[in-house]
Parts: sequence; C-alpha cells; structure tokens
Amino acid sequence: MIVVLKKGISEEESERLKELLRSENYMVKEIQGVEETVLGVVGTIRKDFRHFETLPGVAKVIPISKPYKLVSRELHPEPSVIQVGDVAIGGDRLVVIAGPCAVEERKRTMEIARWVRRCGAVLFRGGAFKPRTSPYSFQGLGEEGLRILAEVREETGLGVVTEMTSPSQADLMVKYVDVVQIGARNMQNFELLKCVGRIGKPVLLKRGLSATIEEWLMSAEYILSEGNERVILCERGIRTFERHTRNTLDLTAVPVVKELTHLPVIIDPSHASGHWKYVIPLAKAAVAVGADGLLVEVHPEPEKAISDGLQSLKPEKFYQLMEDLTFLERAVRKEGRIAP
Amino acid sequence: MIVVLKKGISEEESERLKELLRSENYMVKEIQGVEETVLGVVGTIRKDFRHFETLPGVAKVIPISKPYKLVSRELHPEPSVIQVGDVAIGGDRLVVIAGPCAVEERKRTMEIARWVRRCGAVLFRGGAFKPRTSPYSFQGLGEEGLRILAEVREETGLGVVTEMTSPSQADLMVKYVDVVQIGARNMQNFELLKCVGRIGKPVLLKRGLSATIEEWLMSAEYILSEGNERVILCERGIRTFERHTRNTLDLTAVPVVKELTHLPVIIDPSHASGHWKYVIPLAKAAVAVGADGLLVEVHPEPEKAISDGLQSLKPEKFYQLMEDLTFLERAVRKEGRIAP
Amino acid sequence: MIVVLKKGISEEESERLKELLRSENYMVKEIQGVEETVLGVVGTIRKDFRHFETLPGVAKVIPISKPYKLVSRELHPEPSVIQVGDVAIGGDRLVVIAGPCAVEERKRTMEIARWVRRCGAVLFRGGAFKPRTSPYSFQGLGEEGLRILAEVREETGLGVVTEMTSPSQADLMVKYVDVVQIGARNMQNFELLKCVGRIGKPVLLKRGLSATIEEWLMSAEYILSEGNERVILCERGIRTFERHTRNTLDLTAVPVVKELTHLPVIIDPSHASGHWKYVIPLAKAAVAVGADGLLVEVHPEPEKAISDGLQSLKPEKFYQLMEDLTFLERAVRKEGRIAP
Amino acid sequence: MIVVLKKGISEEESERLKELLRSENYMVKEIQGVEETVLGVVGTIRKDFRHFETLPGVAKVIPISKPYKLVSRELHPEPSVIQVGDVAIGGDRLVVIAGPCAVEERKRTMEIARWVRRCGAVLFRGGAFKPRTSPYSFQGLGEEGLRILAEVREETGLGVVTEMTSPSQADLMVKYVDVVQIGARNMQNFELLKCVGRIGKPVLLKRGLSATIEEWLMSAEYILSEGNERVILCERGIRTFERHTRNTLDLTAVPVVKELTHLPVIIDPSHASGHWKYVIPLAKAAVAVGADGLLVEVHPEPEKAISDGLQSLKPEKFYQLMEDLTFLERAVRKEGRIAP
Repeated sequence: MIVVLKKGISEEESERLKELLRSENYMVKEIQGVEETVLGVVGTIRKDFRHFETLPGVAKVIPISKPYKLVSRELHPEPSVIQVGDVAIGGDRLVVIAGPCAVEERKRTMEIARWVRRCGAVLFRGGAFKPRTSPYSFQGLGEEGLRILAEVREETGLGVVTEMTSPSQADLMVKYVDVVQIGARNMQNFELLKCVGRIGKPVLLKRGLSATIEEWLMSAEYILSEGNERVILCERGIRTFERHTRNTLDLTAVPVVKELTHLPVIIDPSHASGHWKYVIPLAKAAVAVGADGLLVEVHPEPEKAISDGLQSLKPEKFYQLMEDLTFLERAVRKEGRIAP
Repeated sequence: MIVVLKKGISEEESERLKELLRSENYMVKEIQGVEETVLGVVGTIRKDFRHFETLPGVAKVIPISKPYKLVSRELHPEPSVIQVGDVAIGGDRLVVIAGPCAVEERKRTMEIARWVRRCGAVLFRGGAFKPRTSPYSFQGLGEEGLRILAEVREETGLGVVTEMTSPSQADLMVKYVDVVQIGARNMQNFELLKCVGRIGKPVLLKRGLSATIEEWLMSAEYILSEGNERVILCERGIRTFERHTRNTLDLTAVPVVKELTHLPVIIDPSHASGHWKYVIPLAKAAVAVGADGLLVEVHPEPEKAISDGLQSLKPEKFYQLMEDLTFLERAVRKEGRIAP
Repeated sequence: MIVVLKKGISEEESERLKELLRSENYMVKEIQGVEETVLGVVGTIRKDFRHFETLPGVAKVIPISKPYKLVSRELHPEPSVIQVGDVAIGGDRLVVIAGPCAVEERKRTMEIARWVRRCGAVLFRGGAFKPRTSPYSFQGLGEEGLRILAEVREETGLGVVTEMTSPSQADLMVKYVDVVQIGARNMQNFELLKCVGRIGKPVLLKRGLSATIEEWLMSAEYILSEGNERVILCERGIRTFERHTRNTLDLTAVPVVKELTHLPVIIDPSHASGHWKYVIPLAKAAVAVGADGLLVEVHPEPEKAISDGLQSLKPEKFYQLMEDLTFLERAVRKEGRIAP
Repeated sequence: MIVVLKKGISEEESERLKELLRSENYMVKEIQGVEETVLGVVGTIRKDFRHFETLPGVAKVIPISKPYKLVSRELHPEPSVIQVGDVAIGGDRLVVIAGPCAVEERKRTMEIARWVRRCGAVLFRGGAFKPRTSPYSFQGLGEEGLRILAEVREETGLGVVTEMTSPSQADLMVKYVDVVQIGARNMQNFELLKCVGRIGKPVLLKRGLSATIEEWLMSAEYILSEGNERVILCERGIRTFERHTRNTLDLTAVPVVKELTHLPVIIDPSHASGHWKYVIPLAKAAVAVGADGLLVEVHPEPEKAISDGLQSLKPEKFYQLMEDLTFLERAVRKEGRIAP
C-alpha cells in the first residue's frame, strides 16, 4: 500500500503517522519526491484501504495488492476446469449452453432441448424464477419449471442451468439443477452469493450491468470463500450510453479475466445485444477472443416466447451458428490456444 | 404503443400484422409517412413491448404509456407524505437522517445518536447487515446491531433506519426497525422488494449504481404492488467514468422524480461523493434543488470507524451543516416550494 | 414523427396545435390511446425534432425517420468499397493498416514500414500531428513527419494514413497523404469535418470516446454532404466505468453499422485496449465479427517509442497476428460473409 | 511515480531496471511488500507515465504528481478572479451570463439583451458559429451574428460571450467579442485551445461530454501554457446512461475543481438538463454548491427559437430565477463562502 502524504505536513505530524502505522505492525518506508512524499506500507492489510485515508496527514492511499485471493491466477496458475457431468468447462472444447429464456410448457421446452442437443449444445438453459424489471411481467413457473428441467435432463442427458433469485430456493436447486446461475442484477446480492457458496453446485456468475471486472471477481471470491470453487464467469454486456443495443458486450473482459483469474469465462451474446440478429456475429467474436463457452437463447417461435423472444435465435439460425463455430473453432485452435 | 413497420413490407404482410393485432383486441390506426409507415396501437398492453418487435413486419416498437402505475403522479397528483412516528417525510420540513455507516458498539452508537438529535436530525441511521464488496470486510453486527438501534430509539426517541439484505431478516426488521432500507446493490433484488412490500414498514429505496430513473421507479412499483405505499426514494450517486468522486450525484433526479411520481425523494451525499469534504456543499445543493431530506453519515472518530469513515462528517462538521441548512431552508422556502 | 400530447390538454388547445402543424404543411393524424393521445405528423421535417417539444400542449416528440441520409443503407443498399490505390476497403479482403503511433525519425519509420508490408499490411499508419492530452507531451514532427510518410510510400508502395487536426493542414494533406484520419477527439469538430469533406481524399473517421453510433454516422454525413463519399468508419473503443482497459471496444458496432450504412468499418484494437497484450485476441474477434479491416500499432522498441509504446505490438507479435488472421479469415469466409 | 514490479522478476532483471532508471537521473528506492515489490521513482518525470510500463520487468506504473501545473491550486493558492470589463468572475458576487442559444435577427437579440440586463445578468451570451450534430441544421449567422453581438454591447453595456469553432475565426473574435467560449465538443480540439491561448481574451472552457475532471484541467492547462491565464471553467453535464435528461449535471465537480485549481467555475443548467423546466432548480443547486456563476439560455418565444428552444427560459421565468437567486445567495453568503 502506498500512502501519499498531504503537502505541507509537518515533520511532527509525519512522524506521528509513521508511528501509528508501525504500532499496527506495518513496515513503513518513506520516499521524498520532488513534489510529494509517499510512504510504502508493507504488511498484511486487514482493513479497507479507504480506512487509511481517514488518518491525519494522509492525502491519498493507493492499494498495490489485489483484493481477491482465491480466484486469483497468482495462487492458482493452472486454469480451472469445471466439470458438469461429463462436460468440462474451461478445457479444450468450446461449451455451448442453449435453451429458451424462460421455461414454458413441458412439450415446447423438450422440443427445444432435443434440437439444441442435436446441433451440439452440451448443457440446457431455461429460467424458472425470472427476475423482471416490472412486477406485472411473467415471473416464471417456479418449481413446476424446475421439474420440467429435470425431465429435460432425464430424456436428453443434457445438464441443466437455471437462475436462482433467493436463498429460499436453495433446496430446490440442490434437488433439480446441475448449474446454478446468478443473474446480473444479483451479482452483488451477497446473501445469495454466500448461499450458493454453500450449496456445492457449480455456479454460473453473470457480470453485473455496471460492475467493474474487479467487483465481478470479488463476487466470485464470495462464492469461493464459502468453499465452492466451481465458478464459471459469464460476461453479458455492460451498460453504456449507446442505445442501438441493449448493452455493450465487453469482449476484452475475456483476455483480462483469463489473465487475472483461473476461472473459465463464457459469453452471453443474447442478453448483451438484446437482438437475435447480432447473436451470430457476436458468438463468433467470442470464440475468436478466447471464450470458453457461449450461453445462447433459442426459441422456435420467438413471437410467442413469454420472455425475451426478440433475442432468441430460431432453431435453423442456431443450427447455422453451430456449423459456423465448427469451422471457426478449428481455425482458432490451429493458431494455438488464445491465451492472455 | 407505436409500431414502426419494416421498409418494403408488402401490403399483404402489413394486413396480416394488423389483423393479428386486432385479434388480440387492440385498436390499430395506420399512418403512412414519407419514409416510414407506423401503426398506432391502442389498448391495454399486457406484454412487454419488446414482444411486439418479434412480430413479422415490425421494425421497431415505441412504448407511449409509462410502465409504472401506482408510483405515478398521474394517478396520484398529491405528493405522498410518509409518516414515521411524528416525522413526516415529503411534507414542508426538510428531514435529516443521520448516524454512522455501521452500528458499532453500544456506547459509541448512543453517543452519536444523542449528538445528531441535538443538532436537529429526526431519524437515526446505522447498518447492522452490511453488504460489502469483499467477503473479508466487516459484515455488520447482525441482530446485536438491531438491538442497539432499538435502544437508541428508546433513549433518544429517534426512529431508526437500517438496511435489510435478505428476506430471511424480515422478522427482525418488523421487531426492531422503523424504516427498512434497500441498498443500491439490491435495488433489483426483486425477491427482497416483494418481501419489504409485505412487511408494511416504510421503505427507503436507494437508486442502483447504474439504474435509470425508470428502473428505480419500477422497483418502487414492486413494493407498492405488494400493498406497501410508504416508499421513500433515495438518490446516492450513479456510476460514471469520473474518478475524483466515488459516484456522480445526479441531483437532477430530484425534480425529475417529483414530476413523475408522488413519492418523496431524499439525497445521500455521503455515499455519492465518498468523501466527507464534499458532503456539506452537496447537502446544500440537495436542499436547493428541492429534496425532501438528507441521509448523512456521522462519526466522531472517522479513523476508527469500521466502515466508510472517509465519508463520515465529524460531529462539529455535522453541527455546522445543520446550521447552514437552517438559513438555506428559510431562503428556499421564502422563494416558495421548489416544485417541478 | 410522433407527437405525444400532454395529459389533460383541452379540446381547443389540441385543435390549435393540429392547425399549427397543418399550417406548416404537415399531415396530422390523431390516435387516442387509453392513457395518452398522440399525433402522427407526416411530411419532410425541416427542424430539429426537439423544436416541436416547445409547442404548447406537447409532452414529447418521438422521431421516426433517421436523421442521416447519404450514409444510410436505405438509399444505397450496396456496400461501398473505398479504393486507395489498389487497396479496396470494404471488399472481399480484410485490410490491415499498420505502423507506429507517431512518425519518429526516418530510418526507424522506414524499417517498420518494410516489416509490416512484408507481413501483409497494405496501408501504413503514422501520426505527424499528434493530439495529446497534455500540452507538455510530444506533439508530432509536423510537415517533417509527412515528408517521411511520403518517402515510405515511395519506397514501399504502401499508401499512407495520417491524422489531420486542423483545417490549416489541408494543403499538406493533399500533398503528402493517401487517407486522412479524423481522430476520436475531433469526431465532432465540425469545421474539420467540412474541410475533409472538401479535400477529396478518403477519410478514416474514428468514433468519438463517448459518441453514440448515431452521432458517429451524423459526423460521416457531414463529410458526405460536402461531396466526399469515401469515408471509412473506425471503432476504437468507448469510454465506460471499466478501468482494466483504456476503453471498452464495442465490437457490436460492426454489425450495427453495417446494417445502418453502406460504409466500411474497421477496428483499432490498439487504442481500444491500450495494451499490446490484448491486441491479438481483439483483432481476431474483430475479424470474426465481420470488420472490413484493422488499424494496428507496431513498434520494434516500444520502450523507446515517443508515444503510446505500451499498446504497440513488437514486429514478431505482428507477424504472429498476421499468420493467425490468415487461418481465421479463411474460416470466416468459408462460413460465408458475416453479414448483418 | 510508483513502479510496481512483475511478480517473479529475477534479482538481475530488477537490478537492470533500477540501473536504467538511475541512468535517466531518477532516484530509485525499493520497497519489498508481502506480495509485491515496488520502486519509488523520484525526479522530474519528462515522459508520459505509460512509457514506463513498457520497460522490462514493470507490471504497472502509478503516477503520484498531478499532470497539470499552471492551473493547479498548489502553485497558485489564491483563487483567480477573471475581469471582463467591470465584471469579476470568481470573486464575491455570483455572475449570471444569459441570452439566446443562437444569435438570431438583430431586433430579437437586442430585446433579449435588454431584458436579461434589467433582471441582473452581467454578461450576454449568444452563438454565431453553432456546432450542430447534423449538417442540415442551422449553423449560425457567422460574422453577421458577431456584429449583432457588438451592437448589444454598445447599447446595453453587457460584455458578450460567444463560441469559437475554428482557429480561422481568431481575428473575428479579437474584433467583436469579450469572452471566447470553447464548446464541449471542442474541449480536446487542441489546435483550437492553443489558438485561444494566444488570442489573449478570457476563455470560457466547457467540460467535454465525457471528459474526466483531469482531462478538463489539462485542456485548461493548454490555454494557460500559451500565456493566457484568464480561463473560466464551465460544467454543462456529462454523458451517462440516464435518458430523462439530455446529460447528467455533475455538481460535485464544483467543489472538486475548486480544490484542485484556482480557476473560477460556472454551471450551465440549460445544456445539462436540456429542458427549461429543470433549469431553475438546478441553477439554485449550483449556487448552493458554490459555483461562481451561471450560463443560462433565455428566449421570449422558445417555440420560434432556431436552436435549442426547449431548454430556454422565457423572460418571466428568468426574472423569477434571478429573484430566487437573490434570496439564496444571501443565505449562502451568511453561511460564509462555500469553500472546499
């Protein structure tokens, strides 16, 4: 930690500050610059760095160490591979998770599942508890939806991914689901994070709408710190001033996250853009930039989907995407793994 | 709702679309422009407007009606005054809520409470459940903190405001607290919103870090739609690219919100700026722009505060603020109520 | 244009408004909704749409037609191919423009040019007039730099791209340069846009740091409206709250821009990320998403570069990038052109 | 400057780096932390700090000194008071600059000028060169507009403020104008900044749409470094995701700027909000937060204004604003100067 002293601080004040820091067992080394004087403060920092800015004589504090530990690549240089049944996320193969935004009735859901499996998807997605901006929108089928997901797994063999929105759903998740998704709006719902940290199921953690990468990793740290190391990060677009797309997909987050952490990272082009017509080019870009997987919405009759039909690919478009990706993945692999 | 048709749509397609809309009981009126053709679609829209963009032949849909009802000033032209004991929020008098960021030990908390009451604060704030970015930071005293708050109320007569972070804390809130706060990071934790909608206590709803005003009002709508009309909105800064302050305080939100809704709106200058030195000027600006109240952090020894000391006013500074506000409020009142 | 009327507007006021609009030769059609009444206003709108919001009785105006004409794909369905010597930008082949951030001394510049040509770059970039945040930073070699660029062209045959920062440089640009670049900070320097509109050289127009796609296209419209149709759009990252990268590269802008306009669009991964280590993955993603070209910074000794060394690829890394792109382009092409 | 070393750097590499820095005449002091090793580098930094991040073994560089000098309060502790005729900006009295967005015909302009003077405005604003997003919008009267402004000054005695959009207008500005305005879109048009630095007239420098405070001050530094110390900063709203207002007014910028620099700072509530109905509350908030002045648009018939009528106050509203401010200023003064 670097502590910048206030200009015009007296010798005496400066000494008092150094003593105070030393009394808390930090090692302190002073550097007098041309305009500023700074202290290098060494030791295990047990308080929020902003705390030190409240000390008398301190102008600014600059943290040097990263605030996350367990998710950091420094302590865990090898990339983590998260196993969901026989699907490995973060390994050599691109993982495509596909399905409707919300689980609707049984027959329709099963039909989509069969199709996406045939096209090469290895996990199935579908929401049973839907966090909706409006209280008047469809809020999901609840446990009925989870039951349908369980049937999907039984029939197709696809592991199922679904969103959890409250700690009270923990038992249901344990019972029915293979991967628990934490949505963007709940990325800093810390009670929920602690809860999924204890469940023991793999967690797909979406980046918040305006979360920095550091905050996103801190949320992952919450889950790991409860003992659950199976976290998959998912970038789904951030909020900017641009209005042609729902969000702005931050693909640079992929190499940045891979540099900072050992966790796998996947891309959700459907929520990022908010329109099916951008999903295919963005999915390709995600593969080229080095993402470990994709989360894609598919619906046979988008105009009848209960939720977010506009961003769902029709089955034939999904087929085309999967074909395109085959070529692309080979090209990307030929060039060697896209590592940070 | 205005439906913009795709260019080059055939007569037939256009007819099919109109029939489809009419079959769902909408009235449809066509307007042929120079370049575009649009349909005016009238009726109670029961679906998300994005749904209509999935219909064949539709280029874009523009909603006209506002998505919120119960919070809207249109249905409720008189401003709501929220009563907390004998404190009226949204009435003629500016309401100052003050206290430490987190409830610490009993004696210290009581000392702050006595001071802020003496200076003119009418409600006491203090967190017992602290949502922290890092799992390694102090997470609050929990029920012990709530007990201390209850003692504060007993001794000082000040109603107490504290944050709720999980539906599982509902009973504790009912037992101990006068106003339940929903923090910025939980603004779209819809399960929590539904829960506080049912508790029946007044709710202080903070705006999310990157929430639009419309989303913020939709979150308030969640609470009202569960039967709880006592919602106080609190602007606490939004996330932008600027780095000199923790967040960018959006004071324009005050007249905008007062125009759109009947709910009172207060300002939190402490979290907005992240530094005590900006709290006094921002608090004054908040009063001048027409806010109904302030939420201010106060701590006698910021350098010993467990959480967010940097943004806490020392007692003497808080006293100065309250004095300044007396003059200012009178000036603002003389000019007549600052209405939109 | 859709005009939303104020609620509670009297019959008489509404009639006056309609008459006013009709007197300006607009056709007006009224639609009474459940909650709102709107007017469809048809005719060539000659004023800024915000003007109509000043009329009495008007609550809001919603433009339907796009504000740009000449850059629009609607009037020009075929994609434009911009010819620079025998290089075609916007055609079948990916165009790579490479070189140092700033033109430094002659020998070094020539060395870089030879290398990038050997690797497959088809145009050479280098700044002679450098817009720098600080007045104390190197401001470029000026005409001396342009002379070096002209020598590069002579010896290597590569067309040269350089930034213009003031209308007073017009003659120099005509004399020395093949493509004139307008930098992000000058995207709305309208006097400069008019000037390059008259020069007649192809223009590479960078997107502003916080420009919407619509504003970017309006800036292109300025150039086309002066008679110069040879505009190449260049996305180089937008400003967001994220701090790990200099800017956030908005790759979705590629399919969006290709849908809205006939102009080619290229990507600058160097400025977008601000760090060479992210340039290769982002360049690949740009190709996969359908960009027509890349603008890449290359420098043999980044630590000695006068400007922006940190984001420059070393020659061997640039070679690797070009090799990777060969595989990738083939894969992308096999899948057919990535069209919106 | 603090240089953070890469983890795992060898003793030898670290020594080489220190030697290199010392050979460039920096004093280097090493601090070994628990996880990181940093170097404190002391001396006059003559290069962009990003340069040092290109050196081998360097993970990150953290600048400590501020990049601006002449605008800094450190070198110039007393606030600057900018004199325009007998108007003092940055002194004890609030300065109100008012007038139409664009200079229209002579009679109308004169009428507005007389009114705003009568109400207490001390400078007159009006644009003759209008930077417009669309090439098809009214671009201003040019020199004819400047002549009208000169007549305004002659008749009313009000100094005139107008925007300059190209270095080629320098002679006209010298001839006709009292204060030269640099618009938000030209804040980083460095050629224009250098030009107004040499003109010698006071400059009103608007903050760019997405400029950080540091960048804004660096743009002011450009002007001062050319020898012109008479710079007035003007905050006019920044671009965020919020859509109810044109921009988000950043009032916290006032105390921040007053802390960092000696230059006066004023607020433009008209452009910030984009709607006249928010201008009065925001103007009051600006005074309460400690701004030195206001820039307000006034137009008697906003619906006939050629440009930005929607954000113009009608004369009677402007009169009301000036009355309100009288009360408010007295209250703010009673409380003592609002200093940072």
